[in-house]
Amino acid sequence: MADVLLLHGPNLNLLGEREPEVYGRATLDEYVGAFREAAAAHGLVVDDLQSNSEATLVEAVHAARASKRAIVINAGALTHYSWSLHDALAAFDGIVVELHISNPNAREPWRHVSVIAPVADGSITGFGIAGYRLAAEAVHGLLGRR
Amino acid sequence: MADVLLLHGPNLNLLGEREPEVYGRATLDEYVGAFREAAAAHGLVVDDLQSNSEATLVEAVHAARASKRAIVINAGALTHYSWSLHDALAAFDGIVVELHISNPNAREPWRHVSVIAPVADGSITGFGIAGYRLAAEAVHGLLGRR
Amino acid sequence: MADVLLLHGPNLNLLGEREPEVYGRATLDEYVGAFREAAAAHGLVVDDLQSNSEATLVEAVHAARASKRAIVINAGALTHYSWSLHDALAAFDGIVVELHISNPNAREPWRHVSVIAPVADGSITGFGIAGYRLAAEAVHGLLGRR
Amino acid sequence: MADVLLLHGPNLNLLGEREPEVYGRATLDEYVGAFREAAAAHGLVVDDLQSNSEATLVEAVHAARASKRAIVINAGALTHYSWSLHDALAAFDGIVVELHISNPNAREPWRHVSVIAPVADGSITGFGIAGYRLAAEAVHGLLGRR
Amino acid sequence: MADVLLLHGPNLNLLGEREPEVYGRATLDEYVGAFREAAAAHGLVVDDLQSNSEATLVEAVHAARASKRAIVINAGALTHYSWSLHDALAAFDGIVVELHISNPNAREPWRHVSVIAPVADGSITGFGIAGYRLAAEAVHGLLGRR
Amino acid sequence: MADVLLLHGPNLNLLGEREPEVYGRATLDEYVGAFREAAAAHGLVVDDLQSNSEATLVEAVHAARASKRAIVINAGALTHYSWSLHDALAAFDGIVVELHISNPNAREPWRHVSVIAPVADGSITGFGIAGYRLAAEAVHGLLGRR
Amino acid sequence: MADVLLLHGPNLNLLGEREPEVYGRATLDEYVGAFREAAAAHGLVVDDLQSNSEATLVEAVHAARASKRAIVINAGALTHYSWSLHDALAAFDGIVVELHISNPNAREPWRHVSVIAPVADGSITGFGIAGYRLAAEAVHGLLGRR
Amino acid sequence: MADVLLLHGPNLNLLGEREPEVYGRATLDEYVGAFREAAAAHGLVVDDLQSNSEATLVEAVHAARASKRAIVINAGALTHYSWSLHDALAAFDGIVVELHISNPNAREPWRHVSVIAPVADGSITGFGIAGYRLAAEAVHGLLGRR
Amino acid sequence: MADVLLLHGPNLNLLGEREPEVYGRATLDEYVGAFREAAAAHGLVVDDLQSNSEATLVEAVHAARASKRAIVINAGALTHYSWSLHDALAAFDGIVVELHISNPNAREPWRHVSVIAPVADGSITGFGIAGYRLAAEAVHGLLGRR
Amino acid sequence: MADVLLLHGPNLNLLGEREPEVYGRATLDEYVGAFREAAAAHGLVVDDLQSNSEATLVEAVHAARASKRAIVINAGALTHYSWSLHDALAAFDGIVVELHISNPNAREPWRHVSVIAPVADGSITGFGIAGYRLAAEAVHGLLGRR
Amino acid sequence: MADVLLLHGPNLNLLGEREPEVYGRATLDEYVGAFREAAAAHGLVVDDLQSNSEATLVEAVHAARASKRAIVINAGALTHYSWSLHDALAAFDGIVVELHISNPNAREPWRHVSVIAPVADGSITGFGIAGYRLAAEAVHGLLGRR
Amino acid sequence: MADVLLLHGPNLNLLGEREPEVYGRATLDEYVGAFREAAAAHGLVVDDLQSNSEATLVEAVHAARASKRAIVINAGALTHYSWSLHDALAAFDGIVVELHISNPNAREPWRHVSVIAPVADGSITGFGIAGYRLAAEAVHGLLGRR
Repeated sequence: MADVLLLHGPNLNLLGEREPEVYGRATLDEYVGAFREAAAAHGLVVDDLQSNSEATLVEAVHAARASKRAIVINAGALTHYSWSLHDALAAFDGIVVELHISNPNAREPWRHVSVIAPVADGSITGFGIAGYRLAAEAVHGLLGRR
Repeated sequence: MADVLLLHGPNLNLLGEREPEVYGRATLDEYVGAFREAAAAHGLVVDDLQSNSEATLVEAVHAARASKRAIVINAGALTHYSWSLHDALAAFDGIVVELHISNPNAREPWRHVSVIAPVADGSITGFGIAGYRLAAEAVHGLLGRR
Repeated sequence: MADVLLLHGPNLNLLGEREPEVYGRATLDEYVGAFREAAAAHGLVVDDLQSNSEATLVEAVHAARASKRAIVINAGALTHYSWSLHDALAAFDGIVVELHISNPNAREPWRHVSVIAPVADGSITGFGIAGYRLAAEAVHGLLGRR
Repeated sequence: MADVLLLHGPNLNLLGEREPEVYGRATLDEYVGAFREAAAAHGLVVDDLQSNSEATLVEAVHAARASKRAIVINAGALTHYSWSLHDALAAFDGIVVELHISNPNAREPWRHVSVIAPVADGSITGFGIAGYRLAAEAVHGLLGRR
Repeated sequence: MADVLLLHGPNLNLLGEREPEVYGRATLDEYVGAFREAAAAHGLVVDDLQSNSEATLVEAVHAARASKRAIVINAGALTHYSWSLHDALAAFDGIVVELHISNPNAREPWRHVSVIAPVADGSITGFGIAGYRLAAEAVHGLLGRR
Repeated sequence: MADVLLLHGPNLNLLGEREPEVYGRATLDEYVGAFREAAAAHGLVVDDLQSNSEATLVEAVHAARASKRAIVINAGALTHYSWSLHDALAAFDGIVVELHISNPNAREPWRHVSVIAPVADGSITGFGIAGYRLAAEAVHGLLGRR
Repeated sequence: MADVLLLHGPNLNLLGEREPEVYGRATLDEYVGAFREAAAAHGLVVDDLQSNSEATLVEAVHAARASKRAIVINAGALTHYSWSLHDALAAFDGIVVELHISNPNAREPWRHVSVIAPVADGSITGFGIAGYRLAAEAVHGLLGRR
Repeated sequence: MADVLLLHGPNLNLLGEREPEVYGRATLDEYVGAFREAAAAHGLVVDDLQSNSEATLVEAVHAARASKRAIVINAGALTHYSWSLHDALAAFDGIVVELHISNPNAREPWRHVSVIAPVADGSITGFGIAGYRLAAEAVHGLLGRR
Repeated sequence: MADVLLLHGPNLNLLGEREPEVYGRATLDEYVGAFREAAAAHGLVVDDLQSNSEATLVEAVHAARASKRAIVINAGALTHYSWSLHDALAAFDGIVVELHISNPNAREPWRHVSVIAPVADGSITGFGIAGYRLAAEAVHGLLGRR
Repeated sequence: MADVLLLHGPNLNLLGEREPEVYGRATLDEYVGAFREAAAAHGLVVDDLQSNSEATLVEAVHAARASKRAIVINAGALTHYSWSLHDALAAFDGIVVELHISNPNAREPWRHVSVIAPVADGSITGFGIAGYRLAAEAVHGLLGRR
Repeated sequence: MADVLLLHGPNLNLLGEREPEVYGRATLDEYVGAFREAAAAHGLVVDDLQSNSEATLVEAVHAARASKRAIVINAGALTHYSWSLHDALAAFDGIVVELHISNPNAREPWRHVSVIAPVADGSITGFGIAGYRLAAEAVHGLLGRR
Repeated sequence: MADVLLLHGPNLNLLGEREPEVYGRATLDEYVGAFREAAAAHGLVVDDLQSNSEATLVEAVHAARASKRAIVINAGALTHYSWSLHDALAAFDGIVVELHISNPNAREPWRHVSVIAPVADGSITGFGIAGYRLAAEAVHGLLGRR
């Protein structure tokens, strides 16, 4: 059974194709791969899921309650309005790390508010693919603290 | 000459003593040490400075223009109102990483706004001392990208 | 054919497990059972559905247009932003009762706004499982009024 | 000594005469009667008071501290600005149920804010006279829970 | 039985003594006298009441429902927050005229909002004692229109 | 030379034709006539002007500086945004009375703000054609006070 | 007598010269020509007027009351603050179509609010000269519906 | 392969049944038919999809990236909060036309904000079924411009 | 005749019983006694009044106009909305001291606004019963200054 | 042909007469004279225009497009709401200097916002007639920079 | 070692010279002297510091952590924006008293917000030099309570 | 002793190096030189100071009270939040001129608010180095007026 669930929200399946000047040219597989590799270095097994559906993401969080020690989530635009996802994560007892490829605070005002942040242990934003490796490190560090 | 400047703003000299339920029991030296160690692993030399003075921090950023490739800054409460520090960082051509020990978005509303974030490449918040190691990794990653 | 549709929104499948200090220890089945029992006392047959998907809930409301005389809905976090659910309920000619286990007005500010309330006949909040029995009574009363 | 205090605020003495398209044609006596009857079914004795005076209502709440197990309050327009009533209810250790005949959320914006709600155990709105029977049930349920 | 009820709210008993640079030196009796005289010229009989109590004013409005054709009200500071008075006046079927001695729009911002205005047929502000004569004329005019 | 200038702003030339359920069926001539008649009763001579042009109204106020003792103005929709008209009236030393046929506070929110009110001696709103007679009385009263 | 009045507000006489990256290189004559042509295809005769004067536009709307079945209006910057134009259009019984060459919602925030939209039957924005042909079609369609 | 994708969001499957005083009596099939017919006149082939699911709509936009030259979208209530749909459309290189049957600016305030508009080339609102024909014309016009 | 009037507003009669973790265990008599004693040390005679009625408090302020040199007021929740009390105090020529047992700025946001403060000479908040002795000193000091 | 257009907006024809405590006693001619003289010292020829009409000012800006190298504008109260003037100035390729006699930031809040400022090269406020000489210098300096 | 630290923020060194109509004619030395004298009466030894530097004040608070039982602070304009000072005081375990010579609530709106108040035990405002004696009393009282 | 103090706030020591597309390539020395030269032409002697420290700037203003007739200040980012500097300047009896190189109103929203402006005699913004010569002229003019 995996230790960590890596979740991606709407539109992130387009990574590498969509607005490369903002998001870079790496594909979602490459992002996930970077995370897996860094996690594996600490012996952490990773499950991952990308979905454009809020419900699918909510249910993935539910399922993780019994089986995962940490969730790393890049919720895409749902970051800014999905209180359902907020409530799902609030009901998860493990570690929650919020992750963004770009820096939402340097973009449009509506991206400055995160409804995920209040239920996350910590956030990592703006580091592109490197942020995925950092998130794996962060999970490792937080698991050690418990 | 050092590669990275690690800056700490007001009240962070009290780390380990002040509100340990929020900030933990590690001292500032331990935080800086964690960063240095992680940076050293990538051959990065670190200068550090803590100051309760906005002016001193602004001038440290100015001095870094000629001598540093990256600034990592935990600006303390100045994060939320020091447009002077914002302007200083905007005039720094290297990498800027914003760092917080706790998760400001889970605290008082006035801590939800960062005037540093719009001029940072990325932010790392909420991971305690582990965040310092992540910041060192982040700098390493971003330097490699340039 | 049932008379009443009892709808539950995202995360309410976790009832009994999630934040018991807020939501108590009763399971969703027990909540639904309490409602059914109170409805049955008035000869009202109940269908129920829990879904984490806004679309599924919207479509359940659509289906109820032809077959139900009343909808009782605890929309979970969708209460606070799902204008789609608002529009679906606005197109339902029968009775609509909004139901919450806890008292949203005594919680975070974003829970103080309900986009469901303006299209509900009435609301019942804060009474835990007893609220489900009250909602059944309320439906009975309102059906009698028509 | 009665178990429950049923309080009505300003203008509710006009029930049955005032804006019947909003409030219906039942008189205050009929509303109180419906409540009493439903309460009696559970062996609950009811005192009631209507007043147009904030002070009289505040003092009725004070008096109830020593003698009542629950307060059910339809505070009329005071609902929206009487912080004095809020403070009085906050100092009452028993059960507090907020009650409205119509659905304030479907009326003018200033009726969407309740200063009573944050100190109520629960609220029942929009069910007309049936809401009074529901409130009696709610009190019965909550008393049983203590 | 009188035709018109002239109501004065809190602090207006001090007229002539209080802030004469704002309110002039005429006493409340003189204001009421000016109104009566102008009303009498049209055969209108006037009852008047000054009260510092919101409840007393609300109840005076209730009593006027059965006995008066018009209410002229200078509600003093209650103008700006008494939704109870708003509701009472909304339940009065006759004519409602809002009256102020000074021009609230040229004073502090909180005096710019009137919760009485939306339920008044018309308003007369800023004309000092002359405004009372105008209000009597206005009532006469509106009664003629009905 | 006339004593009083009666000004009408945009769209008021349509009186009697436009939205009669709001503005009644009297024509502008009838409104002006009512004012003239009431003014004549006090020996006051009246000039009047209706214009859809802010500039024309501003200049009429300028011209009145040398020749009129009072301005009565129903500025139409300019009431809500014409700071130029505000400034023109502020430079007029005589009496300024703001006049509206309907009650703007009982209509759309943008009609609740008047930029004319802060520079008016007083306002009369909501009395239809009777308000014009009242305004003439008001001018007479205020002139007597000076 | 023409069927449709095509109105242009301030600065639109500069079309083709002003900010061509926003408004394109077509002149006002070409825009009007496109509209006329498309209208003529449906047998609709068009009058047009461009004015930089709010008053002239208001009066053109007044004149259209007796003679036109529809108004198509690109009010330029008056779109965002001219309540006088709003009121004039509200008094026009025929069809009103709001038209913009560019997409105001993708420009500065103050261009996101239209005081024309609430009194328009419909709006067409962002289609450049093609929008003029669409507006002619829209008028044709709406006239047919009446 | 079709040229244009016509998307409908939540509740629009109820067209013809839901609030006919707002939306008219035409069914969704009739709306789509009107669009197809007008598009066919310009040789444009149309695919269409109605979904109550944000995820399904997002994915339809993704699929259109490779196969469609234009998207015409009536997003229903998602118009007002689905930043996910905004992001999906932002990643579509072809033409985007926003379409509404009624005029949202003449309805509730929350319908005045569109999160779709900033990523649309243009918008057409308020013309009922005729708007669908206009949208087809608009797409044709915009395709010609590229 | 007494020199100072000590006023207490709604709910303060419950002191010692209500929320002792906020207000301490001293009774109102003890608070008043502390004030009297400290005042007596400076030869100041004290009248006191507690009322839950805004009107009674307003009238006590009126009565003090002729007979008191200072008013010390802890207005309870009326502090935050009673503009009538504000106006009464504005009409009092003597000294006004605002007093609170707890620190309202460290409690709910609605307690951060005081409508009393703008008409007080000074305020003392947060010192519990000691604040009453300080208020007596303050009055003594201010009287000496006159 | 003149080099510079000096524009004055509404009410500025009253300079010297209107509120001399704010605007001083110099007349418009004296202001214009001061500007002309300072401009002439740099060989700059000046045309000037005062108008109370937004349209006339907009058209003067249009005319200046072909014939002037700079516009200096004191738009009076239009400064605060005339987006039409904003758009006209945005379409002028030469230099734009905003000028005010008094300091709007030290006056009423609505004077703190300028819709002219975002399209001006620079602003000069608060220097009275001396500001006109400074504006001439400023134009000279900016023309030299081009 | 002193018991109490009396801190003064920016510009308070000018006391006696600056705006005497607001701050009176006493010098800072006289204010400090009044405090010392009152403190000495209770056997309390006082250190004092005035600084225009936020950093110096922050560091004085830090130093007081080991050596003082109470801080009395008149932070001058820093009261309204120095979150750094807020954080420093939050980390001080002793008593904190906020002190102002004038009544900020009766001055400009930006002076109505205090970022110091939420971390102070209590506040004393508006009593001039007498307030300093009151503050000494307050400290004495609070120390006795511990 | 110098007549004028020219103050520069944070980051302005970087002039010529920092964001030259905004601030140009002139160095601070060149800006100061331009000011001095223009001041010298009027016989005005200049002292200047740049500091990144709010406290140093505040104290320079204090020192100028006894020795300077005017202060010209470009406060950098402190312009937007330093109420301490506001208070210091308010206590300076001589002339205060606010100066900015670029036009803050054409930049980020937070640069649109100046806390310096309300205490300045006048402001000059957007003219680059020429603005410094204008400021010297402005000071000369204002000194002559006194």
